Amino acid sequence: MRHLILFVAVLLAALTSAQSQPQLNLMPMPASVQAGAGQLPITQSFSASVNGAHDASLDAAVRRFTAQLSRQTGIPFRPKPGAPPTLTIHADRGREAVQKLGEDESYQLVVSDSGAQLTAATTLGALHGLQTFLQLVTITPTGFAAPAVSIKDQPRFPWRGMLIDVSRHFIPIDVLKRNLDGMAAVKMNVLHWHLSDDQGFRAESKKFPKLAGMGSDGQFYTQDEIRDFIAYAHDRGIRIVPEFDMPGHSRSWFLGYPELSSGSGPYTLEGGGMDPIMDPTREETYKFLEKFIGEMAKLFPDAYFHIGGDEVDGKQWDANPKIQAFIHAHGMKNNQDLQAYFNQRLQKILAKNHKTMVGWDEILHPDLEKTIVVQSWRGQESLATAAQKGYSGLLSFGYYLDLMWPAARHYSVEPMSGAAAALTAEQKSLILGGESCQWAEWVTPENIDSHIWPRNAAIAERLWSPQDVTDVGSMYRRLNAISLDLEWVGLAHRSARERMLHRMAGTADITALRVLADVVEPVKDYNRWRDEQGPIDFHAPLTRMIDAAYPESDTARHFGDLVQALAQSGYKDQASEVQIRSWLTLWRDNDTKLNPLLQQSSLLQEDMTISQNLSAVSAAGLQALDYLVKAQTAPEGWKTQQLALIEQAKGRSADLLLMVAAPIQQLVEASAGSTTQN
Amino acid sequence: MRHLILFVAVLLAALTSAQSQPQLNLMPMPASVQAGAGQLPITQSFSASVNGAHDASLDAAVRRFTAQLSRQTGIPFRPKPGAPPTLTIHADRGREAVQKLGEDESYQLVVSDSGAQLTAATTLGALHGLQTFLQLVTITPTGFAAPAVSIKDQPRFPWRGMLIDVSRHFIPIDVLKRNLDGMAAVKMNVLHWHLSDDQGFRAESKKFPKLAGMGSDGQFYTQDEIRDFIAYAHDRGIRIVPEFDMPGHSRSWFLGYPELSSGSGPYTLEGGGMDPIMDPTREETYKFLEKFIGEMAKLFPDAYFHIGGDEVDGKQWDANPKIQAFIHAHGMKNNQDLQAYFNQRLQKILAKNHKTMVGWDEILHPDLEKTIVVQSWRGQESLATAAQKGYSGLLSFGYYLDLMWPAARHYSVEPMSGAAAALTAEQKSLILGGESCQWAEWVTPENIDSHIWPRNAAIAERLWSPQDVTDVGSMYRRLNAISLDLEWVGLAHRSARERMLHRMAGTADITALRVLADVVEPVKDYNRWRDEQGPIDFHAPLTRMIDAAYPESDTARHFGDLVQALAQSGYKDQASEVQIRSWLTLWRDNDTKLNPLLQQSSLLQEDMTISQNLSAVSAAGLQALDYLVKAQTAPEGWKTQQLALIEQAKGRSADLLLMVAAPIQQLVEASAGSTTQN
Repeated sequence: MRHLILFVAVLLAALTSAQSQPQLNLMPMPASVQAGAGQLPITQSFSASVNGAHDASLDAAVRRFTAQLSRQTGIPFRPKPGAPPTLTIHADRGREAVQKLGEDESYQLVVSDSGAQLTAATTLGALHGLQTFLQLVTITPTGFAAPAVSIKDQPRFPWRGMLIDVSRHFIPIDVLKRNLDGMAAVKMNVLHWHLSDDQGFRAESKKFPKLAGMGSDGQFYTQDEIRDFIAYAHDRGIRIVPEFDMPGHSRSWFLGYPELSSGSGPYTLEGGGMDPIMDPTREETYKFLEKFIGEMAKLFPDAYFHIGGDEVDGKQWDANPKIQAFIHAHGMKNNQDLQAYFNQRLQKILAKNHKTMVGWDEILHPDLEKTIVVQSWRGQESLATAAQKGYSGLLSFGYYLDLMWPAARHYSVEPMSGAAAALTAEQKSLILGGESCQWAEWVTPENIDSHIWPRNAAIAERLWSPQDVTDVGSMYRRLNAISLDLEWVGLAHRSARERMLHRMAGTADITALRVLADVVEPVKDYNRWRDEQGPIDFHAPLTRMIDAAYPESDTARHFGDLVQALAQSGYKDQASEVQIRSWLTLWRDNDTKLNPLLQQSSLLQEDMTISQNLSAVSAAGLQALDYLVKAQTAPEGWKTQQLALIEQAKGRSADLLLMVAAPIQQLVEASAGSTTQN
Repeated sequence: MRHLILFVAVLLAALTSAQSQPQLNLMPMPASVQAGAGQLPITQSFSASVNGAHDASLDAAVRRFTAQLSRQTGIPFRPKPGAPPTLTIHADRGREAVQKLGEDESYQLVVSDSGAQLTAATTLGALHGLQTFLQLVTITPTGFAAPAVSIKDQPRFPWRGMLIDVSRHFIPIDVLKRNLDGMAAVKMNVLHWHLSDDQGFRAESKKFPKLAGMGSDGQFYTQDEIRDFIAYAHDRGIRIVPEFDMPGHSRSWFLGYPELSSGSGPYTLEGGGMDPIMDPTREETYKFLEKFIGEMAKLFPDAYFHIGGDEVDGKQWDANPKIQAFIHAHGMKNNQDLQAYFNQRLQKILAKNHKTMVGWDEILHPDLEKTIVVQSWRGQESLATAAQKGYSGLLSFGYYLDLMWPAARHYSVEPMSGAAAALTAEQKSLILGGESCQWAEWVTPENIDSHIWPRNAAIAERLWSPQDVTDVGSMYRRLNAISLDLEWVGLAHRSARERMLHRMAGTADITALRVLADVVEPVKDYNRWRDEQGPIDFHAPLTRMIDAAYPESDTARHFGDLVQALAQSGYKDQASEVQIRSWLTLWRDNDTKLNPLLQQSSLLQEDMTISQNLSAVSAAGLQALDYLVKAQTAPEGWKTQQLALIEQAKGRSADLLLMVAAPIQQLVEASAGSTTQN
């Protein structure tokens, strides 16, 4: 009998827990999560209080946290004076004045139905715990609440960064700030600020005012703005690592200081001719860089300093007899040796300024000291090679957001896979983490958020969460939740598309346009670049459908899942069938509604073909569905015709891809019995 | 033959004009618009240049205009150096340093296919012309363009205002600023800032710091913020008229200064007991007000100063023997006489500070000088009475945005109608214009934009455009366009609803929720106030569907129009029928999709009934439609049953009204042949 009572009690507890415990929409997934029973209601009496170590950034973070929670829930908090706080926050000690790589970021968060305790070794860890609490709060049948839970969490990698290129298109500080808020929400801790490149030099130098003055279109960050921005990032637990790309990708330097280049100039930001690179053979170059780096080293307090070093094509070096003479005179074999010489000189300057050098793959050279950090755009192999030689590394291969990959593809890129998996423990510890990269050839301040978010959150999880957190379905479910959260943070990754569709449509209703936008994606990788069209005009408007469309179509993914589910049921699952039919009908009928609008707008005329394709393939899909559910076999001739149609529709149109063509193709193939589905 | 050629030429010109001339989405409609032939392309080479009188506000306005045009079109402008400007702006003279009532606001705008000229007597008029230009630009099949047009424009009334109450709910400066941008877009020129009321005193007084310090929840505007805000408004051609409501609506004053009141206190912002009012019998009251008004008169440079004066219930006066003794001792008949005495004293103080007194209807009293301005919440009758007595007036009756009326109802309120129509020309000139009013019992910074916009634009047109501009269909078409424009200005009247629906829905898809939200409206007039629930808690969350829903349902209006069109066709118009059927089917099926979500959210559970009602009445509508198109007569019993259902669905539910119930009722009635439709 006692056993029975116990059994019933356990059963009841389990039921209660299962009933009251909503799915946790945490991203990145914490290292350890234990569900409790019940939930903590979030009401007007909510308050948070710090009872351990204080510092300015924690106090500011608690104020932001409270404001954010109030905004998300719409509840204006009015805690009763003297009442115990709902959430107590205890950090054992403060954080470093300049955030350090490897600082303790761990925290524990215990939520019960009567209150919550956040504890951390440092105030930096407490910042992360506050973000987790925000993600826990959801609307329930009885009001807003955080489920009872016990979380122990710390990052897997100490360097979880994002690169933002502000050279190709200038991104104003306020847009960068809201992206810092997004990074903080997903516990990323490094913004790699790509401040100079061929197309623009974006940081003010007081010693060399012509760098930004002539090397930009007038849009750059003043030193005051930079200091304010660094403080803003620090408040959010984010380091700012500046990059000044040298000796290549440096045309913008030469408008004001052509003597730094290996050619004769004059140079324009628009370019043309050979890619100009710095002249590493002149002592004046190093005198310049010594002064410049000295100035920047003071402006940017972080211990790391990125010197770029990528894609030095060396044509200007080849074409300059003096440089070639220098190479031979110093017993160098080739341009790579010259770049290594340049990097060694740079490294000495950086060391004098107490900075650790970071650079891209290409800087790896046996002549360089082991203190440097190599950022790999080439892959885990390259990273492993560096680690074997004793160099620290960061992975960016696979994390290029501008390539328009789906979140799942980024998510599957594991820093410790491939050659890296075979490293010793000591070598593995040299792999510090990774960075997503937002190169800015095709973004503006208007649409950059949607190029970064929500996909960046999947990369943030890869770098924070345990290696075995890999379930793609769970990732997408949580990504949807975090995407909604991020709009409360102030990001415009969803709202910007709406505005851009309205711009294209004028005063017309955009319902049918949204239907089309929901099923297309931009072309992938570097396929938007078309060499035959000449160099990119970085001042052209980015106002086409490809600029407004999300990099990843949720609708197409859901539709694909439905088609899978139907196939797996042997085409018997009625619920899937009804939904598939409803989508296909909507799409089949959409072009008739949309076409008049497309004709009326110069920005939409190019989308007429893809709109027609959507209707055509959907009609084929509906026919296929009829064959399938009636268990008939579609005629071979019909199938051949439809597959040709679909094949054509899968091709690029207006630089867009029609993402529902592939699952419809699957239906058509199955309806003719030509593929095995079950 | 010459005649024939001429005829053909005219015909061709007319055709060209008709083809290339899109409908002009101007609001307010200018005094005179003449369409030309062709259009002015807006390309990257666009530039605007001032060649007449300059002043800081015009230069700033041109910069804002250019940025706004760039944002709307997505085109980063890169005019060729030395090329002639696309738009030249010429003002004969600058504007007043402090904007004056009746300053010349006229402008002319001529757009041809090769350029545009804006001319104005003053730089103030030029500001309005820039707004008109922005409204002219639309997307066309060949790119963005402004149609060729010749516009001569000036306002009908010199005072075109909006009142915003910031006492009941504090509205931060940045939210007010974006509303100033919206006002400038529709050529409104007065913000009436209702800075104090029972529930909060929102302006810093350095002489009496306890006014805002104790008379608010800590949320108020500092004097620096106020000065900055006034400059911001001036830059946009908007005067700021402050209101400090006296002697009633003044509880917030008494928390810090109870001696000003006619009762004994102590007072709290939450209230309770009698409505406290100032004591006009003590000389100390006037000493206080002299110092206070002296300070505020310097802070607010406008020539007008609003002293409120409304709704003095006088109970505290009745209850105070000293005050009653004062009334008798001074030969006054009643409390009204005492208020007039108070107002006379106030007026003297204001006159000393070179301010003209403005107050609500109740201040009208034969003892007051003719210089004052009476703002009428009572109606045109009251306004006419004042004008006959020689008082200037402003109409606010009919323009209360918080009453949730449709735009058309506000639009039909004509200041010169009724008794005002019979006034002499001289008396008519005393009617200065009007003001829309946004009282803030039920708004937060989050949803205030959607309570004001786009409906406020219809009021702006009533006050700016010629009296004969009254076509409601045209108004709604243009209102839709201006509503989209206003989101580019930075207002959140559309985007806020989306966010609020997401808050209510958690991570669930909101498609079905949007379907419901699109067909409901908040209850009208003062029907949200429910005395039986006690006083309003001004700190409660405003996060229900009634808070998110637009005040006016465009969907319901369009649906009503479709039902009218079908009726007028004798139920034969297939196009209308198809659309009606499509809407009704969507709505009938919506509750099944939506109900699980409604159950899961504490904020949505109250909407289960109205969601069921929508489905039920739509099912009835579909049946009625079948009877009608088949020219059958519905059985009487069925009709009775359905009408009862609809009647019940028309009632208030969760403080919402189901706006499609009435047109569906019309279908049901017609299907039974009980009403004549044709």
